[in-house]
This record gives sequence, structure tokens and C-alpha cells, in this order.
Amino acid sequence: MSQTSPPAASTTDFARLLSPRGIALIGASANAASVGGQPLRYLTEFGYAGRVYPVNPKYPQLAGLDCYPNVREVPDPCDLAIIVVGARHVPSVIDQCGSRGIPFAIVLSAGFQEIGSRGAENQRALEQALARSAVRIVGPNCIGVLNLNEHIHAGFGSAMSNRNLLPGRLAMVTQSGGFGFAMVAAADQQGVGFNYIVSTGNETSIKATEFIRYLIERSDTDAVVAYLEGSTDGRGLIDIGRRALELEKPVLLWKVGNSRSGKRAATSHTGRLSAGSELFRRAIEQGGFIEIGDTDDMVDLAQFLRYRKRAKGNRTAILTLSGGAGVLVADLCEAHGLEVPETSTDTIAKLKPLAYELGSLTNPIDLTPQGYSDGFASYNRVIETVLAAPEFDQAIVRSAPGAVAATWAAGFVAVAARSDKPVLLQWGTSSEHYREAIETVRQAGIPAFLSPRRSVSALGAMYRFGVKVQRLKARAQKPSDRPVSAQSLDLPDSGATLGERRSKQILARYGIPVVREILVAESEIDSLRSDQFVFPLAVKIESPDIAHKTEAGAVRLRIADLASLRKAAHEVIDSARNYRPGARIDGVLVQEMATGTEVILGAVDDPYFGPTVMFGLGGVLTEVLHDVTHRFAPFDHDSALDMLAEIKGAALLRGYRGAPALDTEALADTLARLSWLIHDHAGRIREIDVNPLFVRPHGQGVVAADALIVLSEDGSQIAPRK
Amino acid sequence: MSQTSPPAASTTDFARLLSPRGIALIGASANAASVGGQPLRYLTEFGYAGRVYPVNPKYPQLAGLDCYPNVREVPDPCDLAIIVVGARHVPSVIDQCGSRGIPFAIVLSAGFQEIGSRGAENQRALEQALARSAVRIVGPNCIGVLNLNEHIHAGFGSAMSNRNLLPGRLAMVTQSGGFGFAMVAAADQQGVGFNYIVSTGNETSIKATEFIRYLIERSDTDAVVAYLEGSTDGRGLIDIGRRALELEKPVLLWKVGNSRSGKRAATSHTGRLSAGSELFRRAIEQGGFIEIGDTDDMVDLAQFLRYRKRAKGNRTAILTLSGGAGVLVADLCEAHGLEVPETSTDTIAKLKPLAYELGSLTNPIDLTPQGYSDGFASYNRVIETVLAAPEFDQAIVRSAPGAVAATWAAGFVAVAARSDKPVLLQWGTSSEHYREAIETVRQAGIPAFLSPRRSVSALGAMYRFGVKVQRLKARAQKPSDRPVSAQSLDLPDSGATLGERRSKQILARYGIPVVREILVAESEIDSLRSDQFVFPLAVKIESPDIAHKTEAGAVRLRIADLASLRKAAHEVIDSARNYRPGARIDGVLVQEMATGTEVILGAVDDPYFGPTVMFGLGGVLTEVLHDVTHRFAPFDHDSALDMLAEIKGAALLRGYRGAPALDTEALADTLARLSWLIHDHAGRIREIDVNPLFVRPHGQGVVAADALIVLSEDGSQIAPRK
Repeated sequence: MSQTSPPAASTTDFARLLSPRGIALIGASANAASVGGQPLRYLTEFGYAGRVYPVNPKYPQLAGLDCYPNVREVPDPCDLAIIVVGARHVPSVIDQCGSRGIPFAIVLSAGFQEIGSRGAENQRALEQALARSAVRIVGPNCIGVLNLNEHIHAGFGSAMSNRNLLPGRLAMVTQSGGFGFAMVAAADQQGVGFNYIVSTGNETSIKATEFIRYLIERSDTDAVVAYLEGSTDGRGLIDIGRRALELEKPVLLWKVGNSRSGKRAATSHTGRLSAGSELFRRAIEQGGFIEIGDTDDMVDLAQFLRYRKRAKGNRTAILTLSGGAGVLVADLCEAHGLEVPETSTDTIAKLKPLAYELGSLTNPIDLTPQGYSDGFASYNRVIETVLAAPEFDQAIVRSAPGAVAATWAAGFVAVAARSDKPVLLQWGTSSEHYREAIETVRQAGIPAFLSPRRSVSALGAMYRFGVKVQRLKARAQKPSDRPVSAQSLDLPDSGATLGERRSKQILARYGIPVVREILVAESEIDSLRSDQFVFPLAVKIESPDIAHKTEAGAVRLRIADLASLRKAAHEVIDSARNYRPGARIDGVLVQEMATGTEVILGAVDDPYFGPTVMFGLGGVLTEVLHDVTHRFAPFDHDSALDMLAEIKGAALLRGYRGAPALDTEALADTLARLSWLIHDHAGRIREIDVNPLFVRPHGQGVVAADALIVLSEDGSQIAPRK
Repeated sequence: MSQTSPPAASTTDFARLLSPRGIALIGASANAASVGGQPLRYLTEFGYAGRVYPVNPKYPQLAGLDCYPNVREVPDPCDLAIIVVGARHVPSVIDQCGSRGIPFAIVLSAGFQEIGSRGAENQRALEQALARSAVRIVGPNCIGVLNLNEHIHAGFGSAMSNRNLLPGRLAMVTQSGGFGFAMVAAADQQGVGFNYIVSTGNETSIKATEFIRYLIERSDTDAVVAYLEGSTDGRGLIDIGRRALELEKPVLLWKVGNSRSGKRAATSHTGRLSAGSELFRRAIEQGGFIEIGDTDDMVDLAQFLRYRKRAKGNRTAILTLSGGAGVLVADLCEAHGLEVPETSTDTIAKLKPLAYELGSLTNPIDLTPQGYSDGFASYNRVIETVLAAPEFDQAIVRSAPGAVAATWAAGFVAVAARSDKPVLLQWGTSSEHYREAIETVRQAGIPAFLSPRRSVSALGAMYRFGVKVQRLKARAQKPSDRPVSAQSLDLPDSGATLGERRSKQILARYGIPVVREILVAESEIDSLRSDQFVFPLAVKIESPDIAHKTEAGAVRLRIADLASLRKAAHEVIDSARNYRPGARIDGVLVQEMATGTEVILGAVDDPYFGPTVMFGLGGVLTEVLHDVTHRFAPFDHDSALDMLAEIKGAALLRGYRGAPALDTEALADTLARLSWLIHDHAGRIREIDVNPLFVRPHGQGVVAADALIVLSEDGSQIAPRK
């Protein structure tokens, strides 16, 4: 399946697709309302500066242009074809584009995988044509591509027909053309403009992730809005997430298709597969994404993206003229990770002569609505003093009320301009009363909102994005700084599950501490000596044919002396033989009994997201509350420490109920090493379970007491798992 | 403190406060902009039908009315005084109102507890005057009361000055006058009107909960919006929550002051104390409240409150003309607890002849935007068929696009009217394109939204409210149906912590199973006989002076035989004597070792919320993840079962990893009994801990292995705890 192919290693240059020098419109129609007529009209009437070549054997001319009987006849320059012919004709048209040397096509036609078995034959033929021709297509089953800077409306539908859409510095990649363009139209009405909008349709050739990756790099783009129903390009998402942080440009991601019925709908929408939602979520959390769930979210964030001032931290001053608003905004700040520190005594001393009577100067700073007499000029002096105070990084200001808002706003804008700290303005009631004031603030570029919730939500999202950017910058290590060099492992050729002993030997090769153990053959049991061991011990069967030792009754723990050891060793072998007659028995493992707090580590070579490491505290926390976290491999020690802090039960690692703090440094080191192990041998190793790993008190390290490594059935090809 | 007094047992009738026959305005002013001039103007110019009596010794007349030198001179009828004199004069004015026989006053003046120590003297004098006079006041430090039906604008401020505010069937009680009236103004602009709006200020006399309780009962009110910064009237909230469910009228609660800095701000706003937020949250979750966090939420819910159709269940059909929207809406539905079942084969057969080509008929039902040719008449036939399908309780419909929306909307409204199932409409893009269609739908009373998120969020909130209503109706038992009659406990007179043995005896009196045990005096230890017991056993010190037995080293578990029992009993006594020399030793408790899954029950007589029961799974789940739940006592078996289902680790009770399901019936019975125990003895018992209670497999019951009862220090008076 094309959906599971690995992402392109390098980013394709889509400049010629978005800014073609010439466009062939194959299936052009004289009917301006039809799907073949709409782009013809838009491309010829809206101001596109390049050449348009209608292709349709029925017409000699269309829209005053020469019409060509087929695409092979089209003259130069032609970088793009728009294809609107019936689904069954699309493959041959692709072939013709290929032989004409056109690199890109937008296929508006529908009738492929999105209609299930009815479209299967067209889909197959399309994939073959794509493979033959090397043409890369947008779609099929898409509504087109829009370049607002150059007036290129290469598609159909009501939003595409609007020639007055506001140009801007946001790009959009949408897997739902209808919904994506509705967002654009709604944003336009709120003064938010776009440059490039790509409806990706079925993504039989170019995937949404490729467009996002390309657009985020463009210097004319501040951020990319992505509406995704699903993606199999997990590694592509991870790359985008990292790149967005490096560029300090967020991807505003609206991810849908997360629910059972939502997934069902997504599948019937474009026939698209999608990677599992848990790792999808990790990629979003860990990369430069800001999740959105409404057009409002995008419009709100756009205000901050336009605003040049960035806070140095999250210490937020709240200034109000109504105590109630201060309570509410303080709650919102804390809910979104913004700190609301108390005003310093220094600052309070400076504020006292400025403030109205009866106000409160601890943060939130509430002056009460007493400033009507001076048009709230004192309020502006208070704001200026607060912005100068070293204990605050930014300020949220509630506007002065309606009647005096315009006068006050002029003063406010001047005060805000004199500070390098960002401010956010909240209007008190409805915008009707504030028309002039709103215009003053808008001109100054200060983010301003009616809804406290929306404003603080957007501020908090930008803050969390900034934290991720700073965290990436602050990393001492590069992901390429290895704690251990790549080790050759001498894995068996055939797919198999490696036994506990072999699995732990592999962990040890990567520097992960494992329990001391010896393999004792059945014949050696009765000659074991007490001075060989430090009791207590564990005894386990060692057999390539028994994966579930506990189920087989072939494990004995806490053995206290030599007599018990011998007895246990024989019992374990008997149990194994009973459980699986004929099983090959290599002997018994005699292990030290490790102590400490049990945790679980896992590593998997995910078919979509590639090598990934899991961490959890095991037991009920992992299995019932699913309190686990993941990182994409390889990663460094700092990232591993971040993982430990992410789980809900993290307090257990820090020392719970007076217990000593655990050796989180050693645990993080182990996670990082495990990430390199799965990274180096992805393709050969499918899964590693370390369960349990014992974590000892600070300074005393960790030790793996059991492990299991599952190899890929075929080292070169991994089937997608559910 | 007045804040901690118990709520009034019965609801005060505030009819004369909201609809006074005459109003005395004490501190009336000729300056129409002043706080004393504003209400005079509003009451004389906006259409209030009652009498207005300005009181101010400076004027013979004001606004063409006789002005009185003091309130005692005011003639009948006069049900309400509005007081705007300086803070230090308020107490004597209250006294005068009392002697004049005026039952209610609105005190707009500020300068009391909300300004801390500076206002303490005024606060004390005010409280004394209130106690003397029996006048009940709104405020002080409030902005007034508004009765829109009768044009009574009894307050000041910009929203109060608006005589054109839309009347409606929502009431509002707000602890922030400024913010509450801003909400009213914002709602007004979106076509949502109010009847009564009360700004409660400092609540020195009448509390917000009293107004909510009164207003929810009024037949002219569909719902009460409450903006609360805090409350100590926990029992009042619980009562409101139950009454709202009985009346099927939600309280739309905006609760702020939840964060650390938000609480700080709330305290400085009105000097109000508040009950702890965890039980506050339980009262909200369990009662007839819908939480809101924005004016938008209120406006959105108002659409549903106006709409008369109620769904019989949550099975939701989603109808779209863009596949992307269907994915998104399906996600939203599941996130808000609405089911999105697949379309039945019967319905699909009926839909097939109606649907456009290439659409999808499994729910979400996506017809694709192919219906332009017939003005989407087929889409309306599909909607009609879906509404008639028995597998759906309600439908969410995406509107037809802009150009044909008006025509389509007329048909849609007719289709919706023919069904008794509710529909919710989502506009595709901005409202600009839909003006005529929106008017058509609005006239029909169908809830219609631009934002998918907001619409489904409101629908989900109404659904969850309905579930709570239905659950209350379906309860077989009344809260008054006791599983056990009230037991006399013979508790000691002085405040004390009861020992384990005595505590368990009290549990047993309420029918809660406890472990079998005997008290063995020190002198009897060596004559214990093996045939007295079933091993294994536990041994614990019994001493009124040792509360923490484990800490004292005075517990031995899993004792296997008689010799070990004797040894352990002596050791335990030695340890206790070492731990606390001179401790009174009653002997040792010899207990059966209970088995099963450990859980924790607790009961507390909360100073604000009264008797309350807690349940958790104990250990890490309770202490690190805080996975506990609460119910207000007393409650029945069904409510106890609801508690069990609420905890995150509930899967452990149902049988985890192949373990048998636990005896949740016995556990629920125990919780209900514990709720009656704390209910019957609240005031005497402050706290009960049952830790652990062992829960055995289904049918095998539960048993309390340890318990501790803490008595109130003074049975008649309980100090508020943090």
C-alpha cells in the first residue's frame, strides 16, 4: 500500500507547484459553474500572471484562449496541470503529463479509493500511472490549491471563487477541502489572511506532511495551519515537530478522526489509513505543534503570531477595573500554566500614589471602576509602572469601560509601546461600545479579545510553544551524541522471540545493568555449592520454547538457601516439561533477587513512527490507569528526564511517603541507552520489554530483572500493526 | 463569623425585594452621574410602576418627587430601600429602615470587609445593625438589582443604565457586579435576555445561594446563571443542585476563584471566605448544575433552554455535505458523551434512492456537496428519513452552502417541525452568507451555531444534565429509605479519638462487617490456646494513648501459630511501652487476617458541606494520583454504586487481569451505611477512617480490618477547617 511507504528523506521543492509559470487545465469547460469551468474563470479573471492552457478536444478556444486537444500539445512554460476529467480517464492523462514533462498535477476528480471497492480499479490504474510517469499529484478527490499572493485559484468551490480573500502570512494544508476552506472564509471575516492553501484530498502521491514540511520552511510563512484526519507518516510528523521548534514557527494542528465514529468517517471520507492515535498525540505534544479545535483558536493565535513582542517568562500581571474579572483571569492563567506572582513591595510603593481608593494592589491588581473622572489616565500610569516592574514578564489588561474607552486606549497604546514586555488586552463587554478604541489597539498590533477564556487560552498555547523552543535550544546534548556506540548484536536470521538470558545480554551490550545470573544445566544442579551465591535468589527455566515462564509455573523467587535452590531448580524443570512436553531445556537461570521500585521500559519499532521508547511504573498504574509515556528514539538524557516527569505517578520516583528519592539519573541513562538500541537495530528488532527494571535509591543505580526481545519476522519489511 | 452560619432551613420569599411596591432611595442625589443619582433617574424614567421616595435632608424635592429628610418619614407602600450613603452611616440607616418596617435593602456603599482592616469597624457596626433590625440586605459593595420585566433598575453602572436590555427567562445571581452585568450586556447583543439580575456584593446578609434557591423556583425562570467566586454555604449548594434536577431547570454555574491566585483575588474582592474546592466540585458534578466558563457558553445553552424538544437518548445522527465536517463532529460527539451509532441497513435502504452519488450513508452521513442542482432538496429528504429512523434520538445537521441556504432552510425547518426529535444546525462558514437562512431557522426556534465545538459542547452539557435528571427520577429508593435505623452510640463526652476496637464496634452497630477479634489482657497471653483461633492472625496494641500503632512498632501480621502469637503479643506490648512510656495498655487485639482487595472509606462532617463520605482504592492510587470520590450523606445504595464507577481505577473492582469481580454490592451497602452513621451523628463525630476495608469476590462481602473515629472537640460547634 502506498500509505505505508516511508516518508521522503528530503523535502520536495513545491515552489513550481504553488507558483507555476504556466498551467494546463485538462477537462476545461465552457460552463463556468462546472468543476472544469470554475478554475478556468478564476485563473483568467483573478489576476494570475502566468499562462493558462485549456485542454479539451471539443473546443478550439475557451475564455479567449487557444484550447488544446491534449496536454502533449501544450507549449512552454507549463509547470502544473489541473485535471478535472472523469476518474477512469485520469491515469492516461497523468501519463500524458509525464511525457509532456509536467512535474505536478492537481487532480480534482473523485471516484478512487474514497468510494471503496467501486473505485478500486481506478485507484490501481492511477497508482500505476504515477509510478510510470514520475508526475507528483495533489489529490485526487481534492478541491485544489490557492496561492493568494499571486491570485492563483487552482480549484473549485465557494471559497475558491472569492477573489477578495485577504492575503496573509499563514499557510494551510487541509485533508478536508470543504472544511479547510470554510476555515479560511471564517478567518478572512475576522481579518486573518493566508498565503497558500492546499487541499490534499486522498494523498495518493503527495502527503499532507510533505506540504507542511515545505511550507513551514518558507520565509513568507509565519505558521502553517494543518487540518488532519489521519496520517501514516509518523516520522514525517516528528520531523515537522522538530523543525517547527527550530524555526520558532508553530504548526497549528487541528487533528480530527480521534474517536471511533470519527475514524470511521475519516476512512469513508478519503479511504485514508492513519497511525495509532497515542503516538500521534506524543508527536504533537513533543514537537512544535499547537493544537486547535475551532476556527476561533486559529484566529486568536494569529493575533499573537503577528505581535512581535515575546515574553521572557510566564510571570503575568493582571490589571482590572472589576475585581470579579481579576479572579476569573487569575484562574485562567494558572489553568494555562501562567504564573500570577504577587506584586513586590517596591512596586506596591510606586503604585500607591497612582491607584484609586479601595483598590487592591496585590496581583491581580484591581483599581475598581473609580477612574471615570480622569478618563482612566491613572490606570494607564499604573499599567506603565507594572510593565516596568521586574517581577512581571507580561501583562493582561482589562480595558476601561465604554464611554471613555477611546481616550483611554490612545494612552494605553502609548504606554504599551514604551515597554518591551508584551501586553494582552481584554475588552470589558461587547465590541459595539469600543469601535474606535478597538481600531486604535488593532493599529498598534496589540492582541485584544472580548473573551477572557479565549485570550488566555491562546496566550498559554504560545507560552507552551515557547517553552518547547527554549527547551530545545537549552539542550546540552545533540540527539547525535551517543551514550554508547552502535553495537553489533549477532541476531539470529529467522524471526524469533529471544529468551530472557539472550535479551538481557543484548541490553548489557548497550550498557544497561542487568541482574547477575548463571545458567545451570540440569546435570549440574546437584553439585551446586552454597559459596557460589549470595542468597536470596531466583530460579527460572531457560528454554527457547517457553516464552511465558510464570504461566508455565517455571519461576521460583526468594530462595533462601542451597537446599531450597536445588529443590526449586528441579521443580522448575519438571513444571516446564509438564507445561510443554518436548520443550528444549537449556537449564535453569539462577539469578540474584534484585530490589528496588519496579518500573517497566519498552521499545518498539512502530511501523509509522519508527523506533519509540515507552516508560511506565508498572502494575495497576500502567495496566489500569495507562499512566505511561513515550519518546521517539533516539533521544538524550535530558529528554529521558522529561519522560520521567511526565507520568502522573512521578511522585513515586521522587520518594513517596518518606521513601528515599530514586536514582532517576540512572533510570534516564537507561532509557536513553534503550533508545539507541532500538534505533540502531530497528528493522531487525521489533520490540523490547524490560519488565521489571528495579530502580534503587539515588546513587545506587538500576537493574533489569527480566527482559524479552522480539525480532521482526522479516528484517527488511514490517507489516503495519493495529 | 457570619460566613460560617448554617443556611436558612427554608427559602426566603424575595418577591417583595424584586417587585417592590415602593422604593426609598437613601442618599439620593441630584447629580445624575453619581451613584446616588443613577438609580433615581432609572427608577423615575425607565417605567417602574411603583412609588419612588428619595431620601436626602439636603433637598425638598428631587426629580419632581417629594424628598424626605430620613427614611422614617417615607409613606407606604415601601418594600425596599436602596442605600448609597457613606459606609460609616450605613448601620444607622439600616436601623431606621428597621424601625420603619422596610424588610429589604440594597446597599450599594462600599468600604466594609472587602478593604480589610480599614473596613473592619464599619463591618462590625453593619452586622450589629442587621442583627438588631431584622432588615435583610443585598450587599454591601454591590451594584444592585435589576428586574427587567418591571423596568426596575435598582443600582448603578453602565449595564444598569441600558433601558433597552432584552427581557427573557434567565435569572442571574452574580458575586461580581461588574463582570456579571458585562455578561448580561454581551448576552443581550446575542439575543439572550434576563428577567432578574442580582449583584450580591459582600453577602453580609443575603447569600448568593439564597437567591439562586429562590429564583430557580420561580415559574417565570427557565434557568439561573450564577457567577460565584466562593461560598461557605455548601449545604445550600447541595440543596440547589437537587432542586434544580427536580425542577429540570439547570443552574448555569460560572465558578471562579479556583486557583491559588484566583482565591487570593476573590478574598481581596469581597473579603469572602469559601469552602474547599474539592467538595464544591462534587456538589457541582452531582447536582443540577451546568458549568460554564465564558459568556459564549451561556448564550449557547440559552438556545437549548428555549428549544422545547428533548432527545430520548444520546444516539446522534450527523448529516453533512463535507466529509471533513463529519469526522470533526463525530469526534466532538464522542468527546461529549454522545453516541454516533451506525445507520441501520433498513435506513440505508431508504436513503439510497435519495442520496447523491459518491456519498457515504454510514453515520456520519455525508452526501458530499453535489446537491446544488436541486437546491439540496434531496438533502432535506435524507434528513427527514434519518429523523424517522428508530436508531437515532437526535440529529446534527450541517447547513447547505451559502447561495442556496435560504431556500434549503425553509425546507429544513418544515422537515424538522414534522419530527418530535430535536435537531441542531451548524452553519458552514460565516453568518454573513446566511442572513436570510439564519432568520428562518431562528424563527423556528432550532438551535443553530457557527462553531461545531460550541454547538456540540452545549448539546453535550444539556444531555449530561438530562442524564442526572433521569437518574434522580429512576432512583428506586428515596434518600430517606434507611438501610439501618439511627443507633445510639454512647459516645464519650469529651472530644477524643476513639481506639480501633471501639471504632469498629461503632461501625458494627451500623451493620458494617468488621474483622473478628478478641481483646487479650497482658496477663492472659501465656494461657492462650491454639483451638481459640483460626490462623493466620494479626496482633495489635490496644491503648487509648497510641493512635499510630504501626509507627509505634505495635502491630504484627500473618502470625501462623500459637507460639508466634504469644511471642508477638509480648513484643507488641514492649514496643508500645518503649514508644510511649506510661501509656495505658488495655491489652492486645488478636484479629483474624482479612483477605481481599484493600480499599479506603472515609467520612467527615465538613464545616461547610456537612456529612460527606469518601471512597478510594488506597495506596498509590489514593495518595499519589488522588483517585478518590465523594458523596454527601446520607445516600442510598444506587448512589454508592455510582461512586464506585466514578474512580479512575474502577476496573480493579470489576476484576483486573482475570481476577474475579469484587463484591461491589456489599461495598455499596457499606458506603450507604457509613453515610447514615455520619449523618446521624454529625456534630459529635468529626471524622471516620476505615482503612483498609477488604473487598472479597462477588457474593463474599467486605470486612473492615481497621478503623478510627475522631470526635468533635465540642459537639455543638465545629470550627471551619482549611
